[in-house]
Amino acid sequence: MTGPAEAVSEARLWARLMDMARIGAIPGEGVNRACLTPLDRQARRLLIGWAESIGAAVSVDPAANLWLRRAGSEAEAAPVLTGSHMDTQPNGGRFDGIYGVLAGLEALTALHESGTVTRRPIEVVAWTNEEGGRFAPGCMGSMAWSGCKPLDAFAEVRDPDGVRFADALAEHLAEEADLPRRPLGNKPHAYVEAHIEQGPRLERDGRDIGVVTGIQGSRWFTVTLTGETAHAGTTPLALRRDAVQDMVRAVAALNALMQDPADVLRFTVGRIVVHPNTSNSVADRVAFTIDLRHPDAAVLRDRGDAIAATVAAAVRNTGVAVEENFHALPVAFDPLVIDAVEHAAAAQHVSSLRLPSGAFHDAQFVVPICPTGMIFVPCRNGISHNPAEFSSPAQLASGTRVLADALARLAA
Amino acid sequence: MTGPAEAVSEARLWARLMDMARIGAIPGEGVNRACLTPLDRQARRLLIGWAESIGAAVSVDPAANLWLRRAGSEAEAAPVLTGSHMDTQPNGGRFDGIYGVLAGLEALTALHESGTVTRRPIEVVAWTNEEGGRFAPGCMGSMAWSGCKPLDAFAEVRDPDGVRFADALAEHLAEEADLPRRPLGNKPHAYVEAHIEQGPRLERDGRDIGVVTGIQGSRWFTVTLTGETAHAGTTPLALRRDAVQDMVRAVAALNALMQDPADVLRFTVGRIVVHPNTSNSVADRVAFTIDLRHPDAAVLRDRGDAIAATVAAAVRNTGVAVEENFHALPVAFDPLVIDAVEHAAAAQHVSSLRLPSGAFHDAQFVVPICPTGMIFVPCRNGISHNPAEFSSPAQLASGTRVLADALARLAA
Repeated sequence: MTGPAEAVSEARLWARLMDMARIGAIPGEGVNRACLTPLDRQARRLLIGWAESIGAAVSVDPAANLWLRRAGSEAEAAPVLTGSHMDTQPNGGRFDGIYGVLAGLEALTALHESGTVTRRPIEVVAWTNEEGGRFAPGCMGSMAWSGCKPLDAFAEVRDPDGVRFADALAEHLAEEADLPRRPLGNKPHAYVEAHIEQGPRLERDGRDIGVVTGIQGSRWFTVTLTGETAHAGTTPLALRRDAVQDMVRAVAALNALMQDPADVLRFTVGRIVVHPNTSNSVADRVAFTIDLRHPDAAVLRDRGDAIAATVAAAVRNTGVAVEENFHALPVAFDPLVIDAVEHAAAAQHVSSLRLPSGAFHDAQFVVPICPTGMIFVPCRNGISHNPAEFSSPAQLASGTRVLADALARLAA
Repeated sequence: MTGPAEAVSEARLWARLMDMARIGAIPGEGVNRACLTPLDRQARRLLIGWAESIGAAVSVDPAANLWLRRAGSEAEAAPVLTGSHMDTQPNGGRFDGIYGVLAGLEALTALHESGTVTRRPIEVVAWTNEEGGRFAPGCMGSMAWSGCKPLDAFAEVRDPDGVRFADALAEHLAEEADLPRRPLGNKPHAYVEAHIEQGPRLERDGRDIGVVTGIQGSRWFTVTLTGETAHAGTTPLALRRDAVQDMVRAVAALNALMQDPADVLRFTVGRIVVHPNTSNSVADRVAFTIDLRHPDAAVLRDRGDAIAATVAAAVRNTGVAVEENFHALPVAFDPLVIDAVEHAAAAQHVSSLRLPSGAFHDAQFVVPICPTGMIFVPCRNGISHNPAEFSSPAQLASGTRVLADALARLAA
């Protein structure tokens, strides 16, 4: 008898990934598919069609998380949950997020085609807005589902065009009015999310599968410096209150604060918005973001808490406002799922490695709700959030076989 | 008998400035009126209406410079020219540029109402795109008129929305198809431009009028740093090619290069564009502008020429491209016009001060064509390129009386 892992189709999985990659394709084999846009809806309709072809039940919750469910023999048993997200970074690749959703669908399809009956239902979820590229912060869907934040808390967040999150969500749900609804929140038996590693370790160590042990913590800040605009040709430098110059001073001081000889701490200034942003006017306002991550909660707390004072001490004469937009503590995954993934890898005769996640995932917010874990597959040069992001069809299929096996174990 | 200066109306001038300030008004009494836009055309139609009411002849040239002409008794004599520009910075004020145009119109009106007959014609010009806020560099109209650059050289410049200058110009000229055309270029007897000082000296010294002796030189550059984008959570800092971090290094090194204890040198980084500009991706590209000005041509040359090597030495691992977008040597104005302005100020019993211009003006490009000068009026706290820009009705009228007197002298 063929088990679900043997029924996983490398060709079908790859073809579906490539079909999805055409929705929002950008030059260089990249994808730009922001959440709650027409492109996002197009991708979701494609997924729904595939799910319905194997008899999965489709539903959507008030945060627009999309659910695909395969029944178990015990209708009331807590389901085993898998999934990830379908939105991308603005200059993103073809695998981040969507791989976990399509690997989940492929696992369901393999269970279906192999005639496997599980005791527990198995659900695949596509979480809304993991990336935070359109509406910051990311992981709004999983946070709202888990109760980590009420959905209303995101209502007034605006995208770069000034659209409110609440309005984009309402428009989106209206477009999916034909889909059955389910409430936010449930209590799965376990959650396991497949994802590309987005880092170099598996490739460097020549391993097929990452058995993920936890996720480092993240804190996101926006620093706004307010000075005074002035004519670039007439105003002596000594009299200026130049927000660009104070931004340079602030970032230099933050670099010193964030020094880490072990190179474990991640400190990124990725977004800078200057006003009025013309070449011949002194800037009166600069806003820049800080993305700080570390696996140690104490380091994350101490360095993050020092940001405001560090910036205030570094600037010369602009006003400083520091806002914390997001704070996620480091999390440890559950042995139930870690072991299931490790056993599945062994059963599939692929090499594995236990490692923590450097990137941030929806799984982070599922941890308080049920035993949680993740499966990583290698990606070339560790590159992600970039059109050059790549994992091979064989690597992706290998991870999906491990997922199918692990789901079957957890749902048995 | 009343002379032209006595016929200048402070109330009319102020009312017309306030009428113009409503076209493109922004909060805080500012104006955002970009060149070759519907707002620009609305402002020009208002000006044309006022000019026609005193019988001035209106025409437009291929660079969309707008001309108002009052005949002299000797039809073929070279005209005396005044004027300035009508476009503003994106976050601009109510006086920069438009004051020189409306002061010219007010002087024509005063000549008309006082029945003054001049030997030479007097022309008022509104130059196209002085600010460079929509299409960089600025002064395209005066450069094209003077032959400093062929008009075609600007064709492919694009505004922030991707519109080509040539297309914006063609659309604009089509909207003004009813206006008589004149060719680019002529040979005035003299040019005198009135403008707010945009600096603090007249106010600080308690003088009514600045007799401008010349304009410092300007060089504009765009520096583009190209690295590689990467995931902010997974990529060790040592492996990054972070364009934001190299921008910070480059600006710090440029600050050192541009040090000037006398605080005469003007060095401004006013515009920064980051790509992809998301908080959780390492930036793969940063472009920033440099606006460098100095009255001494040798300083301007040496510091400007050192920019590329300074940036290249400062960055860690991004590719560096430095493009010079604009280069204007310091210019000295002509004694014919300097003296006429100084004598006019004395005749009007207002105090004056000889000073160079820190800001950059269309007059710079008229210098090679005919004797040129400028009249400055004080502005509050030296603030310009800002909604807070302010000169009083009395200060503006005083400058206009000196302009009317000087024009009458030069056209006699």
